[in-house]
Amino acid sequence: MTGIFITIEGPDGAGKTSVIKELGPMLARELTIPLVLTREPGGIPIAEKIRQIILDPKNTAMDDRTEALLYAAARRQHLVEKVLPAIESGKLVLCDRFVDSSLAYQGAGRKIGMEAVASINRFAIEEVQPDLTLYLDVDSDTGLSRIQHGRSIHDLDRLDTESPVFHQRVRHAYLKIAEENQERIVMIDAREPLQTVIEYCFAAIKEHFPQIF
Amino acid sequence: MTGIFITIEGPDGAGKTSVIKELGPMLARELTIPLVLTREPGGIPIAEKIRQIILDPKNTAMDDRTEALLYAAARRQHLVEKVLPAIESGKLVLCDRFVDSSLAYQGAGRKIGMEAVASINRFAIEEVQPDLTLYLDVDSDTGLSRIQHGRSIHDLDRLDTESPVFHQRVRHAYLKIAEENQERIVMIDAREPLQTVIEYCFAAIKEHFPQIF
Repeated sequence: MTGIFITIEGPDGAGKTSVIKELGPMLARELTIPLVLTREPGGIPIAEKIRQIILDPKNTAMDDRTEALLYAAARRQHLVEKVLPAIESGKLVLCDRFVDSSLAYQGAGRKIGMEAVASINRFAIEEVQPDLTLYLDVDSDTGLSRIQHGRSIHDLDRLDTESPVFHQRVRHAYLKIAEENQERIVMIDAREPLQTVIEYCFAAIKEHFPQIF
Repeated sequence: MTGIFITIEGPDGAGKTSVIKELGPMLARELTIPLVLTREPGGIPIAEKIRQIILDPKNTAMDDRTEALLYAAARRQHLVEKVLPAIESGKLVLCDRFVDSSLAYQGAGRKIGMEAVASINRFAIEEVQPDLTLYLDVDSDTGLSRIQHGRSIHDLDRLDTESPVFHQRVRHAYLKIAEENQERIVMIDAREPLQTVIEYCFAAIKEHFPQIF
């Protein structure tokens, strides 16, 4: 038996972290297969080192395409060391962000182009695709307001320092990806109260994979 | 006026380092434009950090595609921070290794496939191509014998620990690239004495770009 690969996506401030924090234990209680919660770089040493280079605010000279290649490299390593072995041993892998994040943030946000960023990610993931993607949709005003209230200035990494227009491009890219991949992506209104969003996520997983409950 | 971009390529043991060490001063004496000698990561801090991850012998778990993406990332950063500004200000840039190395080492040596590795490098370099590539050709027996006599075991990084068959694949890939890109690549027999190889290199540059002498 092979497992299941689910990703959670969304702009900053969509509430992914809060959702996963409660969704994880809810799933663990009801699933008949083991659950693995992860996010890139996922504790994989090589991927952690790559991530440190990307997020270091001192690296202001980093070119956008360098950044996109580094994300793809960290993704590849996390995929082969952690995600694929878990799926192959029959587990449910719930992953915070995957390729769609790069398409939205680097492709659209940084204006590299979504198809160009897709091409290096095809190299990174080969044939692997999520079985299901939960896209937590939030408009950029609401999203930015949430992250600005929730964190101190010291927590802000390189991505958070981008402009509101950057975040609008990210959100519109996500909407386009969701529209073009309806067989894989379930869109969830993340302006709803947290508990409602969590229930939507849980219900979507149960509806798509009743055999693991 | 825009400058000129020349790369030097070859398998391990072809003698690139020794050649560049003498070719550099020879060129500097006779050129009418400034010369920049460089190699990836070329002192660019972000690219140096990426290189440290690639070459750390402790990173034995590194996936081949992760490695190829990291090389492309370091290449991108070196290109935009160092190579392109020098070319745009009218200099001659002589670069030790470039995309052909990745096609030969990752594409053929590690068996990822040359077209797949070419695709992520097109993302990294966009439209930039060397004006001339000097390919120092040496058979893998001669090349390996040279590097094994020239270095202590402590100098061996991850690439040097590969098998003779790996180095044969690298050399055959280089021959294929040279055959398919004759308008850009000059092949030089690197089994010849060092001084002869240096003279061939110098002559090739002078023949292609008489206007800068």
